[in-house]
Amino acid sequence: MDFVVRSRLCHRLGASPRYLVFHRPILALRGGRDFRTLSLMSSAPAPRKLVILAEGSFGPHSGKTAYGVIRYGRDEVIAVLDSTKAGQNVAAYLPDQDIPILATLDEALALAARPDALLLGIAPAGGRLPSSWRAVILAAIAAGLDVLSGLHTFIGDDPEFAAPAAARGTSIIDYRRPPEDLQITSGRRHGAGKRIILTVATDCAIGKMSVALELRRAAEAAGDRAVFVATGQTGMMIEGWGVAVDRLVSDFAQGTIEGLVEQGEGLGDWVIVEGQGSLDHPAYSSVTLALIHGATPDAMVMVHKPGLEEHDFDRLPGTSFPIASLSPFIALHEQIAGLVAPSQVVAVALNTSLIADESEARRVISEIAAETGLPADDPFRFGPDRMWSVIRERVDALPWVADR
Amino acid sequence: MDFVVRSRLCHRLGASPRYLVFHRPILALRGGRDFRTLSLMSSAPAPRKLVILAEGSFGPHSGKTAYGVIRYGRDEVIAVLDSTKAGQNVAAYLPDQDIPILATLDEALALAARPDALLLGIAPAGGRLPSSWRAVILAAIAAGLDVLSGLHTFIGDDPEFAAPAAARGTSIIDYRRPPEDLQITSGRRHGAGKRIILTVATDCAIGKMSVALELRRAAEAAGDRAVFVATGQTGMMIEGWGVAVDRLVSDFAQGTIEGLVEQGEGLGDWVIVEGQGSLDHPAYSSVTLALIHGATPDAMVMVHKPGLEEHDFDRLPGTSFPIASLSPFIALHEQIAGLVAPSQVVAVALNTSLIADESEARRVISEIAAETGLPADDPFRFGPDRMWSVIRERVDALPWVADR
Repeated sequence: MDFVVRSRLCHRLGASPRYLVFHRPILALRGGRDFRTLSLMSSAPAPRKLVILAEGSFGPHSGKTAYGVIRYGRDEVIAVLDSTKAGQNVAAYLPDQDIPILATLDEALALAARPDALLLGIAPAGGRLPSSWRAVILAAIAAGLDVLSGLHTFIGDDPEFAAPAAARGTSIIDYRRPPEDLQITSGRRHGAGKRIILTVATDCAIGKMSVALELRRAAEAAGDRAVFVATGQTGMMIEGWGVAVDRLVSDFAQGTIEGLVEQGEGLGDWVIVEGQGSLDHPAYSSVTLALIHGATPDAMVMVHKPGLEEHDFDRLPGTSFPIASLSPFIALHEQIAGLVAPSQVVAVALNTSLIADESEARRVISEIAAETGLPADDPFRFGPDRMWSVIRERVDALPWVADR
Repeated sequence: MDFVVRSRLCHRLGASPRYLVFHRPILALRGGRDFRTLSLMSSAPAPRKLVILAEGSFGPHSGKTAYGVIRYGRDEVIAVLDSTKAGQNVAAYLPDQDIPILATLDEALALAARPDALLLGIAPAGGRLPSSWRAVILAAIAAGLDVLSGLHTFIGDDPEFAAPAAARGTSIIDYRRPPEDLQITSGRRHGAGKRIILTVATDCAIGKMSVALELRRAAEAAGDRAVFVATGQTGMMIEGWGVAVDRLVSDFAQGTIEGLVEQGEGLGDWVIVEGQGSLDHPAYSSVTLALIHGATPDAMVMVHKPGLEEHDFDRLPGTSFPIASLSPFIALHEQIAGLVAPSQVVAVALNTSLIADESEARRVISEIAAETGLPADDPFRFGPDRMWSVIRERVDALPWVADR
């Protein structure tokens, strides 16, 4: 072996995924070597201790990555950095958590449980890192912390970061860096006994990843061998493997997703694929379709946020894009998916966070169930178990699953 | 000015496109500088003299690039290299042409009209260049020829080619190299008086580019200010500008196409955008959708090849993907496009090359016109002028065009 793999995340996986996020750049693996041939999992490494940089943006929407990693990640979050909320605790936003929000990295480094990685939980507008963030990243490297990033701009390619990281022996992980091998769809059918579920939605950033993670949790609780397939950087930070689909070269997006799902099938029977974007999004619909046609899911779960009127997309004054009407949008998904392989929307997962009153939320859920003729629920607010049991039953009854 | 532009193609353009294919790598322009600020068009350069490498693949399907460049390109094609057809003339395949098919580059170099560029008109299976092709490319560089490539694997990044090209002072142009600036859709509306038409299709490689080029020709003949927007490497080789959409990073595909169409609007009133793939293709549908939602065409022209039963896609034994039924497929395109902006399929352009008999071809055209309720014709076989006049009229009558 001419290389060393240090992976703290892969220990929990039953196989050695092709799309593992290695925690050091592994140059020896580049250029077409198949990751599947690796079997270098370390046996029981400690989880990471993270400090999350969320300067000026810790909150439910712009802090989506921070929220996701805190709620679902397996690594321990020691502190969040956001000087605009310094002195508060994450508990004020996510009740089950007890994590200090600090103004500076120095304060985080002074904590008893010293962090070993800085995770960038924000995306700079326009893609350029503000100089204050650069300084924090450099200080983290100097302190021996690894740097974990989901930005489109690769931190590891920036000599200002790469050189000191190499000198200090710390890692820079760019989750969005695409796999180097270029794959075109083969038209592969799913394995016997495997069921593939994809989350789709009426907008970005309303819960596709979280629904997938909640359903995986419920599936595991019910004794099902379930796997979450991460298709975005936050999901990858949580899960330790996957591919940031929005970073793939268009010609190879569907093929790479096909390979990713195949990998998921090797890890479980219920393969729950994280969706991206929405089919009607002016900027990202093609990423959504790549997932639908690349994953060829047996079933889809539609995620919807009642009360949201327009896409979160206001780049030009005077333009707005309304959220689709649910029933025809569901039918359209089935029709579009069916161009390549049959698929059915089997449930509607609602994000009722805009509805403060719980009984009103329940009323809206019933209304949407009646309107769509589908089981509907809010798996965050009311737990995912009931929804999982309904989905499970409906997926198993699909003719293309029953016949497999 | 700290750089030199040598562009033989841009002289015919009325403006300075952002997506110009420069005939030398222009390092000074990289890194976000806006190509729109350039006004360095040379005044009346000579067209190139091309020799096309089509080894083992000169023919209507696998030689798509060679055919396209010969039929529609403005550069002169001096010879085609295909040792399996050496001694023949292109006229046997494309009646209006008189171009020798030769076995070796040396024979081409010995012609009276000495070529000044080698164009790779083939794509190696698996992406790796066979060593015999490498040798031809190296010989071309040694002879001072430029190398023009549409491969996914960038010739210019290969030190074995880059070093001798730099030493010899010849250019390597990789048409698929994406623009460096990353653009996300803005939701831009089309300019006053502009009409955007996109070709879509029931399969790959059945004529979307050619229909767009034929319609542009007919439009110009009718006195309309029309522009062809190239979205693939062959179109770019023909036109001298454009973007290979299938090479874009997924997150930026729709935004880049939006910018490309904006560029087209600066060059003409009728913007005819070359389509890619098909909405039901297992490997490429997301590229198709990126074009539909990125270009937001006012109208679409559906290209269809009667008699073709299945997608040209047989990567796994036992899998096949039938060609869609035309009428519902047309309706689906309008529905999908309408998720972002209204659009209508205004005509069906038929590729009747599978139907030898001309009267039978005319019968099939009538049948499809009746079936779809749309004007239908074969613009290759029977000329594009009639189809253009019908399209023109129908597009101008669209409410979203009439109101602009």
